[in-house]
Amino acid sequence: MNLAMVEELIQALTLANDSEKVRAIVFQGEGENFCAGGDIKDMAQAQKRHQQGEADAYYHFNRRFGQLLSLAEQSPKVVIALVDGYALGGGFGLVCVCDYVIATKSAYFALPETSLGLPPAQIAPFVVKRLGLTTTRELALLAGAFKGEKAYAINLVNTLTEDQEQARLDLDDKLKQLKRCAPGATAITKSLLLNPDNLPQEALLDLAAQQFSGQFTKANAEANPEALEGTKAFMEKRPPAWMESAPAIEQEPV
Amino acid sequence: MNLAMVEELIQALTLANDSEKVRAIVFQGEGENFCAGGDIKDMAQAQKRHQQGEADAYYHFNRRFGQLLSLAEQSPKVVIALVDGYALGGGFGLVCVCDYVIATKSAYFALPETSLGLPPAQIAPFVVKRLGLTTTRELALLAGAFKGEKAYAINLVNTLTEDQEQARLDLDDKLKQLKRCAPGATAITKSLLLNPDNLPQEALLDLAAQQFSGQFTKANAEANPEALEGTKAFMEKRPPAWMESAPAIEQEPV
Amino acid sequence: MNLAMVEELIQALTLANDSEKVRAIVFQGEGENFCAGGDIKDMAQAQKRHQQGEADAYYHFNRRFGQLLSLAEQSPKVVIALVDGYALGGGFGLVCVCDYVIATKSAYFALPETSLGLPPAQIAPFVVKRLGLTTTRELALLAGAFKGEKAYAINLVNTLTEDQEQARLDLDDKLKQLKRCAPGATAITKSLLLNPDNLPQEALLDLAAQQFSGQFTKANAEANPEALEGTKAFMEKRPPAWMESAPAIEQEPV
Repeated sequence: MNLAMVEELIQALTLANDSEKVRAIVFQGEGENFCAGGDIKDMAQAQKRHQQGEADAYYHFNRRFGQLLSLAEQSPKVVIALVDGYALGGGFGLVCVCDYVIATKSAYFALPETSLGLPPAQIAPFVVKRLGLTTTRELALLAGAFKGEKAYAINLVNTLTEDQEQARLDLDDKLKQLKRCAPGATAITKSLLLNPDNLPQEALLDLAAQQFSGQFTKANAEANPEALEGTKAFMEKRPPAWMESAPAIEQEPV
Repeated sequence: MNLAMVEELIQALTLANDSEKVRAIVFQGEGENFCAGGDIKDMAQAQKRHQQGEADAYYHFNRRFGQLLSLAEQSPKVVIALVDGYALGGGFGLVCVCDYVIATKSAYFALPETSLGLPPAQIAPFVVKRLGLTTTRELALLAGAFKGEKAYAINLVNTLTEDQEQARLDLDDKLKQLKRCAPGATAITKSLLLNPDNLPQEALLDLAAQQFSGQFTKANAEANPEALEGTKAFMEKRPPAWMESAPAIEQEPV
Repeated sequence: MNLAMVEELIQALTLANDSEKVRAIVFQGEGENFCAGGDIKDMAQAQKRHQQGEADAYYHFNRRFGQLLSLAEQSPKVVIALVDGYALGGGFGLVCVCDYVIATKSAYFALPETSLGLPPAQIAPFVVKRLGLTTTRELALLAGAFKGEKAYAINLVNTLTEDQEQARLDLDDKLKQLKRCAPGATAITKSLLLNPDNLPQEALLDLAAQQFSGQFTKANAEANPEALEGTKAFMEKRPPAWMESAPAIEQEPV
């Protein structure tokens, strides 16, 4: 992943986040690998600009990737990764900000930064958030590599599949399941889970009650009737309007 | 669970929290289910009051349930859930604030809110606290249902049993084990673990040392001699006074 | 562990933290046990001084152990525990602040404090940090004992071995793996993971980019060329200077 791709992803994400038609965003690699990390040529470029007197060259080069990760994490849409092959360094970070991760058994993960003399600077905070401090210490400080089975065991991966084809089938299942969930309620829920302003518990619960209540106020204004539609559909035992051709509500527990 | 039951639970919890005779609080359903979530009739009631001009009708209806969850979570007693059948939405939230959860293999869990057009507003923060962000994202955003085995795998459940009878036997075991633990020290420990004021680490450790020290000051005043009694009983190789008929201190490790 | 040993450990850790030659710190017990907890004689000593009018006797006795734990946790070196036999109370706390934990199947863990009438005051916050709130509630409030297998299942232990000999072999492996990782980048990474000032996410990412950039500025000053050396070694397909006789970069994923 080079800086040009970071800018393209920021642009694409901004468009998707703002579109009412988009319900989910899926990251996947083209070809064999998810993402093998940052492009070493960008490093050489930063070094050149630094030597030419641009004091913040390394800072900006590094920080921009973190902005992409924050944008993906805070997306009001459900963000899914489909991982096969390498997911290293920055690619590992991109996996960590996703809401749901599908990976093949041959997917190959590592945080190799410290073995290259660098801290995984923009990535580490997102790894801690996804895997917890204890697991991240092991992965980031020993810089070891591991495959799908271990990724599944440490909850980096939600669904583990034999190959890419099975992974795509699971993705289809998850997208169908997502159609059952109202988009406005989903966006509010994600924001409550992530708690981006780091509100203390009672303040977060106050905000949550305001957002719950706001769902009905909006509905009255006919701007977004999903809360009333959901309750009504449930009582009338029919799928709600936002489901389109999604499967029936009843679902076998896993 | 309707609003009347929420009020009754708040009253019962307040009494239990204030009683020196109570050592543990156990939540369980009457009959087949733990709790299938909020009563849809309360929603209709909130809608009616909202339409009659009570601007905060939905807010108060929602927020009150969160107050119950906070009260249960912050209880100075050890709070246990015994779960069989449905534990959905608000019932799921009640499970998450417990210190210890015993469930049968046929217990059935889900956060179906977004599929009903609503965010799990008062519940989501407590689910994140119990299961972590990563698992909660999957459960809350996909609104999928799952049974005891998965609940155990994700650490929602501490003991998984074949049926209600085995669950009650395990409850008896845990209550016996709790009798070994001094009530005052337990209350302090819970508060340190939950850290309700969100103190930074060093400030929390300062407070912890004050509370440790306070255990002995109180003992000197003969108000609560459990710290001195505990050390004394240990050296005299006898059960401490708070154990009553509880089993001997030595215990096989699990 | 008595107060004299706490002071000795604080001294030894301070020396190790300040030495550029030290890459890792290993805690292990002499003989059969890792650490069976605080020395009961220190408690008697605190009681005596308390009775003689030293109001803070218990406070200081307790708080000093927490200072040792904070120092070990915040060490810029990689801290490893090799656990066999008892790791109780304070010994359990010492395990929790380590970056990597190797234990034998017969290692025996417990937080017995509340069964002795005391809160695990200086220990509890570090247990929550290593194991999460949910698991810590069970361990601290029920004061149950458990062995290596469970310790591994709850992620208290990173590598579980049959006996001490195997544990030492695994330690050798991990120390070799650590040699691959640049010491400066490792220290920065640990600090980003632990986030001791509890910075909000975006502020932490800003700091991370500054530290990433700082790695190169230092290199230009020739004070610490590891970032440039790492990139250069990678492109030249040779081990970087900090590796000495460490194994080749390529590593089989686990």
